[in-house]
Amino acid sequence: MLIVMDKVATPEQIDNVVKVIESKGYTARPIPGGERVAIGVLRNESQVDDSVFQVLPGVKDVVHVTRPYKLVSREFHPEDTIIRVGDVTIGNGNLTIIAGPCAIESEVQALTIAEKVKKAGAHLFRGGAFKPRTSPYSFQGLGKAGLEILAKVRAETGLGVITEVMDEETFDLVEEYADIIQIGTRNMQNFSLLRRAGKARKPVCLKRGMAATIQEWLMAAEYILEGGNTDLILCERGVRTFVNHSRNTLDVSAVPVVRQESHLPIITDPSHAAGRRNQVIPLSRASVAVGAHGLMVEVHHEPEKAKSDGAQSLYPEQFESLCEQAKAIYAVSGNGEANSL
Amino acid sequence: MLIVMDKVATPEQIDNVVKVIESKGYTARPIPGGERVAIGVLRNESQVDDSVFQVLPGVKDVVHVTRPYKLVSREFHPEDTIIRVGDVTIGNGNLTIIAGPCAIESEVQALTIAEKVKKAGAHLFRGGAFKPRTSPYSFQGLGKAGLEILAKVRAETGLGVITEVMDEETFDLVEEYADIIQIGTRNMQNFSLLRRAGKARKPVCLKRGMAATIQEWLMAAEYILEGGNTDLILCERGVRTFVNHSRNTLDVSAVPVVRQESHLPIITDPSHAAGRRNQVIPLSRASVAVGAHGLMVEVHHEPEKAKSDGAQSLYPEQFESLCEQAKAIYAVSGNGEANSL
Amino acid sequence: MLIVMDKVATPEQIDNVVKVIESKGYTARPIPGGERVAIGVLRNESQVDDSVFQVLPGVKDVVHVTRPYKLVSREFHPEDTIIRVGDVTIGNGNLTIIAGPCAIESEVQALTIAEKVKKAGAHLFRGGAFKPRTSPYSFQGLGKAGLEILAKVRAETGLGVITEVMDEETFDLVEEYADIIQIGTRNMQNFSLLRRAGKARKPVCLKRGMAATIQEWLMAAEYILEGGNTDLILCERGVRTFVNHSRNTLDVSAVPVVRQESHLPIITDPSHAAGRRNQVIPLSRASVAVGAHGLMVEVHHEPEKAKSDGAQSLYPEQFESLCEQAKAIYAVSGNGEANSL
Amino acid sequence: MLIVMDKVATPEQIDNVVKVIESKGYTARPIPGGERVAIGVLRNESQVDDSVFQVLPGVKDVVHVTRPYKLVSREFHPEDTIIRVGDVTIGNGNLTIIAGPCAIESEVQALTIAEKVKKAGAHLFRGGAFKPRTSPYSFQGLGKAGLEILAKVRAETGLGVITEVMDEETFDLVEEYADIIQIGTRNMQNFSLLRRAGKARKPVCLKRGMAATIQEWLMAAEYILEGGNTDLILCERGVRTFVNHSRNTLDVSAVPVVRQESHLPIITDPSHAAGRRNQVIPLSRASVAVGAHGLMVEVHHEPEKAKSDGAQSLYPEQFESLCEQAKAIYAVSGNGEANSL
Repeated sequence: MLIVMDKVATPEQIDNVVKVIESKGYTARPIPGGERVAIGVLRNESQVDDSVFQVLPGVKDVVHVTRPYKLVSREFHPEDTIIRVGDVTIGNGNLTIIAGPCAIESEVQALTIAEKVKKAGAHLFRGGAFKPRTSPYSFQGLGKAGLEILAKVRAETGLGVITEVMDEETFDLVEEYADIIQIGTRNMQNFSLLRRAGKARKPVCLKRGMAATIQEWLMAAEYILEGGNTDLILCERGVRTFVNHSRNTLDVSAVPVVRQESHLPIITDPSHAAGRRNQVIPLSRASVAVGAHGLMVEVHHEPEKAKSDGAQSLYPEQFESLCEQAKAIYAVSGNGEANSL
Repeated sequence: MLIVMDKVATPEQIDNVVKVIESKGYTARPIPGGERVAIGVLRNESQVDDSVFQVLPGVKDVVHVTRPYKLVSREFHPEDTIIRVGDVTIGNGNLTIIAGPCAIESEVQALTIAEKVKKAGAHLFRGGAFKPRTSPYSFQGLGKAGLEILAKVRAETGLGVITEVMDEETFDLVEEYADIIQIGTRNMQNFSLLRRAGKARKPVCLKRGMAATIQEWLMAAEYILEGGNTDLILCERGVRTFVNHSRNTLDVSAVPVVRQESHLPIITDPSHAAGRRNQVIPLSRASVAVGAHGLMVEVHHEPEKAKSDGAQSLYPEQFESLCEQAKAIYAVSGNGEANSL
Repeated sequence: MLIVMDKVATPEQIDNVVKVIESKGYTARPIPGGERVAIGVLRNESQVDDSVFQVLPGVKDVVHVTRPYKLVSREFHPEDTIIRVGDVTIGNGNLTIIAGPCAIESEVQALTIAEKVKKAGAHLFRGGAFKPRTSPYSFQGLGKAGLEILAKVRAETGLGVITEVMDEETFDLVEEYADIIQIGTRNMQNFSLLRRAGKARKPVCLKRGMAATIQEWLMAAEYILEGGNTDLILCERGVRTFVNHSRNTLDVSAVPVVRQESHLPIITDPSHAAGRRNQVIPLSRASVAVGAHGLMVEVHHEPEKAKSDGAQSLYPEQFESLCEQAKAIYAVSGNGEANSL
Repeated sequence: MLIVMDKVATPEQIDNVVKVIESKGYTARPIPGGERVAIGVLRNESQVDDSVFQVLPGVKDVVHVTRPYKLVSREFHPEDTIIRVGDVTIGNGNLTIIAGPCAIESEVQALTIAEKVKKAGAHLFRGGAFKPRTSPYSFQGLGKAGLEILAKVRAETGLGVITEVMDEETFDLVEEYADIIQIGTRNMQNFSLLRRAGKARKPVCLKRGMAATIQEWLMAAEYILEGGNTDLILCERGVRTFVNHSRNTLDVSAVPVVRQESHLPIITDPSHAAGRRNQVIPLSRASVAVGAHGLMVEVHHEPEKAKSDGAQSLYPEQFESLCEQAKAIYAVSGNGEANSL
């Protein structure tokens, strides 16, 4: 950390800053410049809380020079992490496609969709049993019955399943049934849930919060790794901006930045970014081209009748086309090499 | 809801939209215009999911004409809700000031600050026992020991206490000790927590999510009212924007809008909006002037030594000055009348 | 336009709204619903100013049901517009790559870079002669001398040139030298400049404003078409959001939306979105995959010595690699067909 | 500036950074830390372009430690700048209220409104003669005839007038008629216009761009001061965010930050921030309370008939009430002292 002093800071003010630094157990190193003095803060093992220094008399600015995350960082762990679910891998070297309905509505619905997406090329099946909904009056998911349907989908199709967990109370249950446990956007900084996920024996998929910086997102991931679970997938799903032609703005540049900063695999969710069907295929193509390790896409065989998110669900034939386009782009982007920055 | 058709929509496309509307149990009312047809959707008791219609062939746009919330709306409940905590009221007719440290660090710290803020004019005491922190390596609060200190503060000073709950697991405990239970920004859409709060027998203070629209915020509040708890306070604490000179951007216009849309009281938290001490007093003045029913402010007698948020904590003398300024502005803004829109 | 009344609106309030609508020369059509009345506004040739209605007593909401733009809309002009510059076309059916330095610094610099980008596959050359700079103390471009260098580049390499115009005063001069006249982000709503561009006899490239909605952007384009110049290219270059890991957030979903709403070609500028070199290639790949008609990329043979934007300029070898990747992705995305939505 | 090296940066990489720094004419000062090396860049008179360094091999981050603006900064010019227009002053020690219609529509309209706002307590009159409009089909202002009406308003009421200039072509004309020349939001970075304003012999009011940081805004102001015109007023008018319940989000914290960073007076424009009448009074109160030196408010005696921005224009009686509330709040906020940070 670097503390920049005012041009007119007095020697007493500079001394005081040095004292506060040392009282925290760090080393202070004043750096006289042309116009003003800056003071380096060294020997800090974890990140220094800048707030104390920012408001000391004579201080103009406080500047961080290191990242606060450790276990998730590529500096700490240079090799790509690869997640394994049965025969499927997520990480470098292949494109993993996850597809299925927003919510599990019935056994027939789930099995119908699962067979279609498998045939089209999906590697894993998604479907919500516990659904976070903006309105208390909306369909909230089938709960345990939904999990049982997911188990049946896996048994009949061989597809591994990913489903969302909403709270600690139902975590054991979700962990029992899911192959990958999803933590949703609205829970990205539900720290109690993150701690529980750190103890899980299944891979976790952590969606980015709607207004989270990459640093905050990686710090949320750090909670899970710090808890002992290193099987973590990050999922970019769009951020909230002033833009109103899509539900959220898919932040494609997050993909190369996360790949540079972290060893964890990163996929995107173009369905939730778009919020409407006709943007999902273009955003999927962009995601593969920018270097994502995978896609998670909502598909429904009767989207007009879907109990949630019907407008952003692809028809099975559209998903088939999406898979073809995605694989073609992935092939020419190169396996990892051309995807490099 | 209104469904706007393309200029070139065919009669078949229009018929199809009417059919889908009716298949959902609503009434369709086509409205021919000069250039294009629009179709009204009537008899919908709860909000219609627009997503299904948005993507039907020939549909240009889907427009909501009603709000999705009910119990929280002023249309449903015209009179102001007033919250009572002992002798203190929050709602119209007075300005309620809540103050205290970010986190409870020790009995001495809490009691020292409590006495100072009480003397300066605070009506309620705030202090975190369970702390949501971006980093797993930061101080996470004293937990139950913190709650016991809060009880002692109440016993010794007579001030009611507000403290944050982070999860369902510790909800009973927090509910036992707190006079007002706070749900933080990052948990605004933790729906399991909201449902639990709907069963609580204590007033709840629901902070606005960092990227939440007012509609989403009121829908989160609807979860709590729908659960049976009508003692709810809303707290505006700044939203995330591109602006980088304050930690968040205090959305002052949210105050008159919420007061118009809802009967629930609304306070602001200038400390978290600012993120640095020297903006807290100006933002507090602005909050009172814009019509907030109260303020929640962080105060620490030794902010350089605070275990969290030291940079945004006021010194007790500053808080004294804040109280004087806030009360003077409140007085001339009128009790409710001049605060009206 | 649709005017939604309060549930408790009185018949007098409804009558008054009808009167105001008719006083403006429109037709009012009240639509009684289950709970409240809405009033349609018909026979409006241009967009109705909603502001008058929004604040009439008893009005809850005002809802637009038509788009304000005409000449730029696909509803008005269904076929794709194709721009021709010599042998090069921009529009459907091929991928157009524009490359060159941020600023023209010298004849040697410009010619060196032009030859390299031509060899790598660029179709047009970019380079600023008049530079809009945040600071008055930064290099402001070579002005007319820069334009003359651009003419020499064209003469020696055969590449058409695109360069920015900053004001009406120098418009004639820029128009004389440029093959495509660029209007920058900060001037997107410089309406005097847009009117002048509407009279230009050269194609114009209009960059999206940093905080412009697509509707505002298309309305700015409408100024140019309304002035008589239909040779217009739109350029998405990233929007301002809370995100801080890239200079701006490339809004990839703008590409399919603009292609659906308008007949005008749309390219992207990944260099300005990224602001740093290592994101430019991934964002270029994403742009092509999402369906852009072209790319505009900054390239410099000695970026460390560049007088502006050196950090986001690619080395010529990187640009060569970009061209290969972009063309490969374009090929598999299909010429227009697979790019369709 | 400080250049932070990767943990694993090699001595060669560090040497190379030092060489590039020195090749630019600066002094390099390496600062070995616990884990990594940082390199200070000294003796830079103007701001160093960081882009060159950010992408050198081994560089992790580049950190600015000084502000890029000079003439506008309080470090450079500690005393408050006070603007004088006849007997009216803008700056510390009083609250200046500017009011009038969005656009000058006729002599009768302008004089009617001017008399009403003068009586209510306005110090200056606003009214647009040249109007920047999103749509080419909207009313664009009366032009020179509007300026002549402004002159008549001044002659008859004694109120100084402020009006917007849109381009260099009409600058002489506007400068001749106006007492204060306004540069609008969309032109904040129209650098040609800023340079012309730097030569003006009248005070200038520079509105903040819709997505401008305070640093960019102050740099735009620097253009004007650098040109020789030091009579400059800054005007906060709301920024673009995801928030949709007001047209823009009034960034109240910009007021104390600008007052700390700069010696220039700062006013707010609550009308354009709100975009609807019923938020204007609360936002005006907030603006005064947060420490603004003045307000600029839209008033119309017949807002339903206004040719632009009718929905955000106050009725004269509302403006009267606004003036009373604003003055009462200003009085208790203290003249400067209590407004201090």
